Amino acid sequence: MTRTLNVAMIGGGFMGKAHAMAYAAMPMFFWPAPAIPVRKVVVDITEALADEGRRRYGFEESSADWRAVVKRPDIDVVDIVTPNDSHAAIAIAAAEAGKHIICEKPLARGGDEAKTMLDAVKKAGIIHMVAFNYRRTPAVALARQYIEEGRIGKILNFRGTYLQDWSADPDSPLSWRFQKKIAGSGSIGDIGTHVVDLARYLVGEIAEVSALVRTYNKTRPVQHGNLDKLGAAERNTGAERVEVDVDDEVVTLLKFADGAIGSLEATRNAYGRNNFITFEIHGTKGSIAFNYERRDELQVMFADDPADARGFRTVYSGPAHPYGSGLWPIPALGIGYSETKIVECFDFFSAIASGKQPSPNFEDGYKTERVADALIESGESGHWVKVRP
Amino acid sequence: MTRTLNVAMIGGGFMGKAHAMAYAAMPMFFWPAPAIPVRKVVVDITEALADEGRRRYGFEESSADWRAVVKRPDIDVVDIVTPNDSHAAIAIAAAEAGKHIICEKPLARGGDEAKTMLDAVKKAGIIHMVAFNYRRTPAVALARQYIEEGRIGKILNFRGTYLQDWSADPDSPLSWRFQKKIAGSGSIGDIGTHVVDLARYLVGEIAEVSALVRTYNKTRPVQHGNLDKLGAAERNTGAERVEVDVDDEVVTLLKFADGAIGSLEATRNAYGRNNFITFEIHGTKGSIAFNYERRDELQVMFADDPADARGFRTVYSGPAHPYGSGLWPIPALGIGYSETKIVECFDFFSAIASGKQPSPNFEDGYKTERVADALIESGESGHWVKVRP
Amino acid sequence: MTRTLNVAMIGGGFMGKAHAMAYAAMPMFFWPAPAIPVRKVVVDITEALADEGRRRYGFEESSADWRAVVKRPDIDVVDIVTPNDSHAAIAIAAAEAGKHIICEKPLARGGDEAKTMLDAVKKAGIIHMVAFNYRRTPAVALARQYIEEGRIGKILNFRGTYLQDWSADPDSPLSWRFQKKIAGSGSIGDIGTHVVDLARYLVGEIAEVSALVRTYNKTRPVQHGNLDKLGAAERNTGAERVEVDVDDEVVTLLKFADGAIGSLEATRNAYGRNNFITFEIHGTKGSIAFNYERRDELQVMFADDPADARGFRTVYSGPAHPYGSGLWPIPALGIGYSETKIVECFDFFSAIASGKQPSPNFEDGYKTERVADALIESGESGHWVKVRP
Amino acid sequence: MTRTLNVAMIGGGFMGKAHAMAYAAMPMFFWPAPAIPVRKVVVDITEALADEGRRRYGFEESSADWRAVVKRPDIDVVDIVTPNDSHAAIAIAAAEAGKHIICEKPLARGGDEAKTMLDAVKKAGIIHMVAFNYRRTPAVALARQYIEEGRIGKILNFRGTYLQDWSADPDSPLSWRFQKKIAGSGSIGDIGTHVVDLARYLVGEIAEVSALVRTYNKTRPVQHGNLDKLGAAERNTGAERVEVDVDDEVVTLLKFADGAIGSLEATRNAYGRNNFITFEIHGTKGSIAFNYERRDELQVMFADDPADARGFRTVYSGPAHPYGSGLWPIPALGIGYSETKIVECFDFFSAIASGKQPSPNFEDGYKTERVADALIESGESGHWVKVRP
Repeated sequence: MTRTLNVAMIGGGFMGKAHAMAYAAMPMFFWPAPAIPVRKVVVDITEALADEGRRRYGFEESSADWRAVVKRPDIDVVDIVTPNDSHAAIAIAAAEAGKHIICEKPLARGGDEAKTMLDAVKKAGIIHMVAFNYRRTPAVALARQYIEEGRIGKILNFRGTYLQDWSADPDSPLSWRFQKKIAGSGSIGDIGTHVVDLARYLVGEIAEVSALVRTYNKTRPVQHGNLDKLGAAERNTGAERVEVDVDDEVVTLLKFADGAIGSLEATRNAYGRNNFITFEIHGTKGSIAFNYERRDELQVMFADDPADARGFRTVYSGPAHPYGSGLWPIPALGIGYSETKIVECFDFFSAIASGKQPSPNFEDGYKTERVADALIESGESGHWVKVRP
Repeated sequence: MTRTLNVAMIGGGFMGKAHAMAYAAMPMFFWPAPAIPVRKVVVDITEALADEGRRRYGFEESSADWRAVVKRPDIDVVDIVTPNDSHAAIAIAAAEAGKHIICEKPLARGGDEAKTMLDAVKKAGIIHMVAFNYRRTPAVALARQYIEEGRIGKILNFRGTYLQDWSADPDSPLSWRFQKKIAGSGSIGDIGTHVVDLARYLVGEIAEVSALVRTYNKTRPVQHGNLDKLGAAERNTGAERVEVDVDDEVVTLLKFADGAIGSLEATRNAYGRNNFITFEIHGTKGSIAFNYERRDELQVMFADDPADARGFRTVYSGPAHPYGSGLWPIPALGIGYSETKIVECFDFFSAIASGKQPSPNFEDGYKTERVADALIESGESGHWVKVRP
Repeated sequence: MTRTLNVAMIGGGFMGKAHAMAYAAMPMFFWPAPAIPVRKVVVDITEALADEGRRRYGFEESSADWRAVVKRPDIDVVDIVTPNDSHAAIAIAAAEAGKHIICEKPLARGGDEAKTMLDAVKKAGIIHMVAFNYRRTPAVALARQYIEEGRIGKILNFRGTYLQDWSADPDSPLSWRFQKKIAGSGSIGDIGTHVVDLARYLVGEIAEVSALVRTYNKTRPVQHGNLDKLGAAERNTGAERVEVDVDDEVVTLLKFADGAIGSLEATRNAYGRNNFITFEIHGTKGSIAFNYERRDELQVMFADDPADARGFRTVYSGPAHPYGSGLWPIPALGIGYSETKIVECFDFFSAIASGKQPSPNFEDGYKTERVADALIESGESGHWVKVRP
Repeated sequence: MTRTLNVAMIGGGFMGKAHAMAYAAMPMFFWPAPAIPVRKVVVDITEALADEGRRRYGFEESSADWRAVVKRPDIDVVDIVTPNDSHAAIAIAAAEAGKHIICEKPLARGGDEAKTMLDAVKKAGIIHMVAFNYRRTPAVALARQYIEEGRIGKILNFRGTYLQDWSADPDSPLSWRFQKKIAGSGSIGDIGTHVVDLARYLVGEIAEVSALVRTYNKTRPVQHGNLDKLGAAERNTGAERVEVDVDDEVVTLLKFADGAIGSLEATRNAYGRNNFITFEIHGTKGSIAFNYERRDELQVMFADDPADARGFRTVYSGPAHPYGSGLWPIPALGIGYSETKIVECFDFFSAIASGKQPSPNFEDGYKTERVADALIESGESGHWVKVRP
């Protein structure tokens, strides 16, 4: 009989929705499932919110006391979907209680904090994962497969972007994502780390960065309600305005440890770009290009195609590609955000079942935080900064 | 307290997966939910398959006897995800038992059979729906909204396609989808009806058709296992070949009742097209274009835009668009097949909660079958055929 | 020494510009040139217009008397770029005078008129060509090459469109293109014939059609000046309105002589489409898709590509493709309207130099007119109409 | 009567072809022309080559002695289409002789050399232009118009690329473009300067750069013939290999003088990219995106569009846009490389006729060289480098 594992999910918001859906759906998609998640307890900041979460997300129980919950003997997995400032406390407590952990990204508010979390999970010997879900997009996993098989040769160059526009409006409210003490950083941590994760996944370790960091909207109105609704939050046009202490944009050069070079741009102030996660990779035998806004597709060009029929192929991910057997029976039925989270859940529970760390785990999350640290430092100093090992 | 409704799902396959996921996820997305689906009983053709379905899809019970299940007093909703030849029998029995019904498309193997189902549900006074999920894509619902608001004026022309390639290979096996006695027809019923549904949703009733119907692969190998895996089914290259008695392709002209004209092409033999559901609509004040393979996007052109900035806008569906409040907080996080089915489930349960028939209901499903009948008849006769009212 | 050939160009307008440019540029691009065009005489309807044409287009002489010019012994080539109603008279006179002829499309105002022209050129034994320039787009020629080499197998289906929007505005003036006595027909002759030419070039003879033909704007204001400026003509909003006696749109099914089927849509009333000449062809071994609005690119899909890297390739035409050696040294430097006309000129002068008829010649132009006749007849009768042989 | 101006064109190659075509075609397109170019003398390195150029490009005379030609009293304009190492000598001699000058890009082999040319033309008081033709693409000029009209607000960010693949193959021969003494630099001068020119045109002066510069193919085979055929040159696979002393790729951060930031990537080693000149600009009121491979189109997004119809508009350049009146009567007939050169020629002759310097002139060409110098210096030093004023 397939093993069941009891999950305590700490936090709600749209990430709670995404994770809860994945717990319910994963075994339906990947069957036989590596293990079956049981939505045991959901925790929120008040009893009322937690109970609403229970009913909405189909958990058995609710609680407003995460410290108590993470210690419960019947809990196998702790899922952290809170704002960044509580990741470390929850993760460390969960690790000490011997629970497997999946934590939303970014892992922490910087490398030092991430290090405490990494130390804790290593010491505890549990399975740990950071929820950089975009590398779970089947087309991205296919890019990785091509690279690993040597089909585009040695990588010369990587260019990545993550562009959104939901905070371009100066009256878009000051959610926790614009407060350094909660978020750690702005576009760097919130979305830049996703591209760093993709770069590390596809190319390898980043050794050095030279960055430009900018804050365009120096103040924002205080937020009323609509916690974490991103662009759908109410515009508090008349509200008191408070100073923003995080970045709106980062643009950086990258030196990879193995010699490849690259660049990265991340901003939530790019009007017209919604969730524009793109990368383009040039190798000695071909190229790859991807745009998450059209995420069913991977563009790949093989240099050894015949001269009269050479060009990027638009490959729609499907059963012949990574994760394809668990998803839909033909390509282009449609990969959405749900599907990326279902795949993430599958990889996490597969890791628990097999006892082998998944990727990206806290080690990856930590390294990504060190890159984020370096971006901030380079933005301030105006120099190339080596990523701390 | 939100009402719960017990669901009996008859059938498995990939549609069972999609529906089960939607039952679990719908309240997570659309909260407060109009009603909460309870996955009560799943039925399959053997006890073993049904029990596997129960575990995989998270149902409370399983059964191999759909006739008994649809009569159970604790069942509120019957969900029909079987091959086409059993739709009528199950739906009529469920209607007679007073259950609300959602039935996969096409509703039946033709208009006459569909009529028996429509009569049954009308007599029973229950809520009924046909699962043409593609009109649930938010970008498609947005197209409808633009049209209803008169933003592209009076519609002149509609061009729709549904192109796939999973059956182009002559060795692709003879699944039930290639057998007239089970499926009713080939590309016409399987995918053409989706475009007919979109045309009816966006433009209006189809009055007359002139069609070309072709069967390219006259025989196919007998299928071994892998029921309904479409393109991922094993190639039974060496197996016995049987005659195919359904169509591989239909191309047709359309006259709409209100004077608009159009065309439609549907085939599962278009190499390189995966789930290429497209439409383009020209009106007296603008145009709309859509391609499901890039389903987050709707293309819309307004003729009264200034001369120096006129062109199709690529609108990514999100919180500002239909169903947006229940889905993801910004556009392009990603609409996948899952999201279309979650929206469908929401509309169905909203209909039950409100007591108002959803759209498309069996009346729509019946009318679509009459169009399918006309396509087949026109393909045979070579004449314009009026759709039976 | 390369031979020179003296050209008399009858007519001006934007086609005169395009042809004159091609005469000057062709030897620069295709060198050594098959023959060198000399811009000898340009003819227009008044001496003043003709003299302006001479200076503008770099001709040696000008005249207002085409009948005299086409008989001049020093003229080798007659180029007809007048409105449709004078094609026949000029072509027949030029043929009788033994001149090689290139005539703008459509060849005539219908099949009967075209037949008189075909008979004349056949009798005269001169080289003749119809200026369906879009098949000169290198990417289109590449499509033909793939088909001829069997790389997409036997053709099953063709879908073509030619959509523009310059006449969608009801106040767009009644140029000669909307007058049956001058143009012969509307969208059918003006743009539909281009798609018929592409269909014949790529698939083969069209045997039978079933068409819908519509006139949306029943009246238009009388035109003042701006002859043949298409969408850029002044809007004569207050002017007297006259009845339109040609079609705004045609949508048709096609049966090809060799068994393939297809459809075609042509209209100048599709808001947002500018010069949207597209085709998609499905074969038993692959597919091809093209959109002239992105004319450097051909999409091609080969069914025998490996399962994990299958999809449409975006091939940018360049030196490795048809006409590539004469155009630009790398792909995507850019094919514009100019380049299509330079290639056309090259093919025409190559034909004269070699003594072999080019394609499309008047025989092709005549057959295309017979398809146009059939479209009009089917639009009126509502029946399938066989194309007259 | 429109003035005629006698042109001496120094050099051949594919640029000679492009310029000669533009001289012939410009008055045909832009009529009445500001002045009419007369193709007077073409100069090449031998009498035989020059004579062939005369016949091919339609010049009246030919010569192998540029020094004599540029002094001829009947010459009004000197056009320099030679490799980079002779730009300065020819331009200075032509300036001293009082001729107007158009010079292919890059202006020189670096800022110091460019300065000598700038000084000479300033002293001579003649009209001078650098042939950065891509800013002549109508869609690019439209981007500039939107920016000047404030329609996308204050510019925050610019990202530009110029990617080609014709030199990715290690056996692609060592043309002059890979020799520092002739070319000055590699990808930086050859293609990077085009993007610098676009950035200066659209955003403003570049103040500082931080660059990565790489040479991937350290040696290349000696070239035999096929001078300047780029990717179409013969592969001299067996030939002697020589060291390459220029760059294959540059990636850089940019600080603009007015506070905007940006990045730029230029390489001829990006498999699958042919002439991939792109830019994306984010402003406080909207965004613009362009891809030369689809050069008829400009993408523009206005932030104040209604929430339910917001997104990038695909605007096809035509009569309503810059240069539209001289080009084709409707959008998407097609802008090719020819059209960009015809527009360039029009702007140059308009400048001569009006006596006002065109843009980009040698001042612009010089400033662009100073940016190129800074890129090379930063690539070597690893520091931010200020562009010399």
